Amino acid sequence: MLYAVIMAGGSGTRLWPLSRKGLPKQALRLIGDRTMFQHAVDRLAPLFPPERIFVVTNAAMAEVLRPQTLELPAANFILEPSPRDSAPAAGLAAVTLLARDPDATMVILTADHYIVDTAQFRAALAAADEVAADGTIVTLGIRPSFPSTGFGYIRLGESQIIVNGFRVYRSAGFIEKPDLPTASRFLEEGRYTWNSGMFIWRADRLLAEFASQLPESHAALMRIGAAVGTPDANKVLAVEWPNVRKISIDYGVMEHAANVSVIPVDIGWSDIGSWAALLDVLPGDEHGNVLSDDVLALDSRGSYVRSESGRLVALVGMQDVVVVDTPDALLICPRKRAQDVRDVVNRLAADGKQRYL
Amino acid sequence: MLYAVIMAGGSGTRLWPLSRKGLPKQALRLIGDRTMFQHAVDRLAPLFPPERIFVVTNAAMAEVLRPQTLELPAANFILEPSPRDSAPAAGLAAVTLLARDPDATMVILTADHYIVDTAQFRAALAAADEVAADGTIVTLGIRPSFPSTGFGYIRLGESQIIVNGFRVYRSAGFIEKPDLPTASRFLEEGRYTWNSGMFIWRADRLLAEFASQLPESHAALMRIGAAVGTPDANKVLAVEWPNVRKISIDYGVMEHAANVSVIPVDIGWSDIGSWAALLDVLPGDEHGNVLSDDVLALDSRGSYVRSESGRLVALVGMQDVVVVDTPDALLICPRKRAQDVRDVVNRLAADGKQRYL
Repeated sequence: MLYAVIMAGGSGTRLWPLSRKGLPKQALRLIGDRTMFQHAVDRLAPLFPPERIFVVTNAAMAEVLRPQTLELPAANFILEPSPRDSAPAAGLAAVTLLARDPDATMVILTADHYIVDTAQFRAALAAADEVAADGTIVTLGIRPSFPSTGFGYIRLGESQIIVNGFRVYRSAGFIEKPDLPTASRFLEEGRYTWNSGMFIWRADRLLAEFASQLPESHAALMRIGAAVGTPDANKVLAVEWPNVRKISIDYGVMEHAANVSVIPVDIGWSDIGSWAALLDVLPGDEHGNVLSDDVLALDSRGSYVRSESGRLVALVGMQDVVVVDTPDALLICPRKRAQDVRDVVNRLAADGKQRYL
Repeated sequence: MLYAVIMAGGSGTRLWPLSRKGLPKQALRLIGDRTMFQHAVDRLAPLFPPERIFVVTNAAMAEVLRPQTLELPAANFILEPSPRDSAPAAGLAAVTLLARDPDATMVILTADHYIVDTAQFRAALAAADEVAADGTIVTLGIRPSFPSTGFGYIRLGESQIIVNGFRVYRSAGFIEKPDLPTASRFLEEGRYTWNSGMFIWRADRLLAEFASQLPESHAALMRIGAAVGTPDANKVLAVEWPNVRKISIDYGVMEHAANVSVIPVDIGWSDIGSWAALLDVLPGDEHGNVLSDDVLALDSRGSYVRSESGRLVALVGMQDVVVVDTPDALLICPRKRAQDVRDVVNRLAADGKQRYL
């Protein structure tokens, strides 16, 4: 059976001042009236009944996310005792699923990405499910639209088969975030996709990779799995969790995994890595502006302006800026500098201004 | 005896969102901790005892301004029943002063200009007082620093005398706001000054100009003056005020006045016509920014950022912008577009958003 596992433990602050400690991107209503987490669940719903949608997160974040998705069983929130990066999160989900379904195949997803073409996304997952049945590890690769230096890449190997219209390739290797000349070359060669972080594998297949690549982590995970559903479950998890090595799926599993395939997809994927990304994802007005209510923009173009403070925000003659207004803090930067919001967050932390973080 | 008359009836909204109806520029703390009105009184103080500083304004504005200048006698606030532009205001001040001092000479000033070199300003007033003694109408002309199309100009005639180091010229005519080529020519020729709106004349001399140029206004003003200090004063003022023609000093008096002299001055004068003017007047930091508390500006230059809301305002990578943040409204515009704040105010008025005006 196919299960979705949404990893929602992040504490990102790249969307400051809206995102804060305890209120990361997945909890924000960035697109329409639904949070990023709700979008992540919504787009799965036609393919997965709620009982087969799981969430890996921490206890505090679960308190924030549960009320946003009351359709999901409370037991489907798998709680990490502490953040240990994505490989342990995936491993914890795997042993939890195996305890209820030895035949479980799992889709690993994140809660902070946005996908425009959700039907195509689900079709790709269904195809990946078929490919994964024989033990292949499948990843969805995003066809690059520009030479991004912010994503990892996957090199496509030989083409294997076509499943439900999706061409499946052997992976010829995972590549870390490249510099710009390299990214440009990748784009030109046409044999690379972005690493979306979306993986499809049989749960037992993932554990086999743990066994060969991270044996100590594997042993700890097996002990955690053995206790799932017993009165000792939480105690064992608390004891064993620190023995699961803190490492990402990419480094800990994928770089050296056997039998990895890639399905390149065009699904309008965005990681909403900064405020500027919303100008690409959201439909703008005739001047290319994306404006919330209470914004008066005169003779202004290409700007993202969001008022969360209830106040009037008036722009005159501005171009290509990001303005995010919250009750206690306001951000203004050029669209091109939206990545540098992290500099503000770092400075505030350095200045001890915790109340704004 | 020399008296100062500060005209403070304006209801300007060019400094929105800080300035509002009922809170015009003169009531704002734009420079340091003192309001523009307080600055106007402060710079007079070494030359004028409080008893000889008068204010022409309306009743509502007097309520705002009086607490700011408790040193001024309450009786020195001359209240216009309704706004009728600057000539009636000057005429009302003239008859009020003449009722107490037939030998009164008056300096007409506005409350919404800023002057850097206040000592030179006072020296110029003292020189103008000497020149005005024989019935000459004197105006302080500002040496132009750029080809402004926002001010009227005065053409200098022949040089007459030097008084206390100030060269005094005949006026060769008042000129309305010119277009840019004309303003550039004026600047090049060097025989023009900006019309500052600061005039020095004997009160009886001003009334003589009213008598010849605006005889009906003169008759009404004389009836108002005759009642000053009597129990009927307010009643007569209310009845006669509408008979005083609504017109500016420039059009109503100066354009056709006899015996007008100009004293060009370099006093660091600014009319603070927009937020951008504060970037010229106030000392900036090493990046040319003028920032209030609670502003964090990273890699930003040439910007005026004012937080009046108690909130943190964070800028990253911005250049030459104006940001004014108040509890209910926020303005963002390029420095060069600061004049266009009026477009915002006009739009808000058209949209019926009175609460922001």
